[in-house]
Amino acid sequence: MGHHIGNIHTSRHWAQHCNDLIRRVCDLYPGSFAPVCQLPQSPGASIEAAVRELERCVVELGFVGCNLNPDPSGGFWDGPPLPDRHWYPLYEALCELDVPAMVHVSAACNLNFHTTGSHYLAADTTAFMQLLTADLFADLPSLRVVIPHGGGAVPYHWGRFRGLAQDLGRPPPEESLLGNVFFDTCVYHQAGIDCLLRVIPADNILFASEMVGAVRGIDPRTGHHYDDTRRYLEAADLGDEDRHKIFEANVRRVYPRLQADPRSAA
Amino acid sequence: MGHHIGNIHTSRHWAQHCNDLIRRVCDLYPGSFAPVCQLPQSPGASIEAAVRELERCVVELGFVGCNLNPDPSGGFWDGPPLPDRHWYPLYEALCELDVPAMVHVSAACNLNFHTTGSHYLAADTTAFMQLLTADLFADLPSLRVVIPHGGGAVPYHWGRFRGLAQDLGRPPPEESLLGNVFFDTCVYHQAGIDCLLRVIPADNILFASEMVGAVRGIDPRTGHHYDDTRRYLEAADLGDEDRHKIFEANVRRVYPRLQADPRSAA
Repeated sequence: MGHHIGNIHTSRHWAQHCNDLIRRVCDLYPGSFAPVCQLPQSPGASIEAAVRELERCVVELGFVGCNLNPDPSGGFWDGPPLPDRHWYPLYEALCELDVPAMVHVSAACNLNFHTTGSHYLAADTTAFMQLLTADLFADLPSLRVVIPHGGGAVPYHWGRFRGLAQDLGRPPPEESLLGNVFFDTCVYHQAGIDCLLRVIPADNILFASEMVGAVRGIDPRTGHHYDDTRRYLEAADLGDEDRHKIFEANVRRVYPRLQADPRSAA
Repeated sequence: MGHHIGNIHTSRHWAQHCNDLIRRVCDLYPGSFAPVCQLPQSPGASIEAAVRELERCVVELGFVGCNLNPDPSGGFWDGPPLPDRHWYPLYEALCELDVPAMVHVSAACNLNFHTTGSHYLAADTTAFMQLLTADLFADLPSLRVVIPHGGGAVPYHWGRFRGLAQDLGRPPPEESLLGNVFFDTCVYHQAGIDCLLRVIPADNILFASEMVGAVRGIDPRTGHHYDDTRRYLEAADLGDEDRHKIFEANVRRVYPRLQADPRSAA
């Protein structure tokens, strides 16, 4: 990532090297990791290099998904929004290869934004609203998108998004988006996880935790790491079936190549 | 508002006219409204015109607070963050006059952002994180700031903000911010309001609803307007004392001129 650095040439080489390293890590720990690639993006650049790197990673290296940066400028938001035709070649490749994209920005270099404290969460919310106001999934019904950090502000404001869709004469987000959009569980306290689980159907929630993530400390209130999200899910009011969906079944459905690739023991 | 239109000259006249009209509306319905002013801001302009208009509104017209736009560019975020010295003359005037500022952006003119669906919520989150990483309230301990829309993504991610403060070697937000920062209740569903009430102390929550707000429709699930936030608060698990704080006592504390001005019957 760090797409704001250099140009598309820099990003292409950097992405290739990083993805090759990711493949090596996954080969060293096949029971722990499955590879997801970064894409060579750069402000103002064509998306073609990203399509080629996605194909290389999935077809040649057995990757199961990718990370798509909706703002390669790093907090200046001067590129086209996600439903723009600019991105369609990548979306078509994702559908063709049957892999999902996590929509996740990289470092903010705009002084107004703290990378992990506001840019990430704002980008998640921005991406969701871009998808809510467009017909991307009518065009590409098999495209699958994961929004990290529990969907940014989205579940907390689910009534707002339902109401905005209604005012705009669009179908409810449950109908227009939840066949294609998934949220992870990177929300670092019990009340947040409980809100996520109460609002978003279990079919749309994918377990995620962190390994050297945004928050590294131990919560003095609980004595456990803030980002030990499994504990919050285990303490939540969840039935066995929903728990199985969130911890395993959904991710196998959204990332079908997780099972197909013989190199991934997971 | 609409600070991205014209220049500081345009904004000064527009703000004066709007504020004069607000005074007239409040005179017509003194039991329903108390006046809060917009400020003449403009991208790249000095904050001096805002200081003068704030003083005119509070001293001459009996206003009880103001709205401060943290991004007068309308979604390009090319100005200084809130803790920057740029804003200090306004903060000093707010303290001197004993009135709070609601931190609220205006329309987005960046194609990536939907005004009410993502720009508002992102700005709330951005403002909070700017305050969390600075010493503004150590410099100005009597400054009071209201963050709308239930704090954007903040309560849903309260663990993240607590953990980020800890990792950064800063005091917990409960200590460093909650003496000065308040959240309103413009969250349009029960699960969101319940999350807000569970996470943020009742002393820091101010009742707010909308009159021609972001979402105007009726929720088919409840048969009531999405933005009829009083219903969610009445249905919430709240004691009498906390309910009184949220509906009345806090706002009288944060906006002390509400009582002082004889023109406001409220």
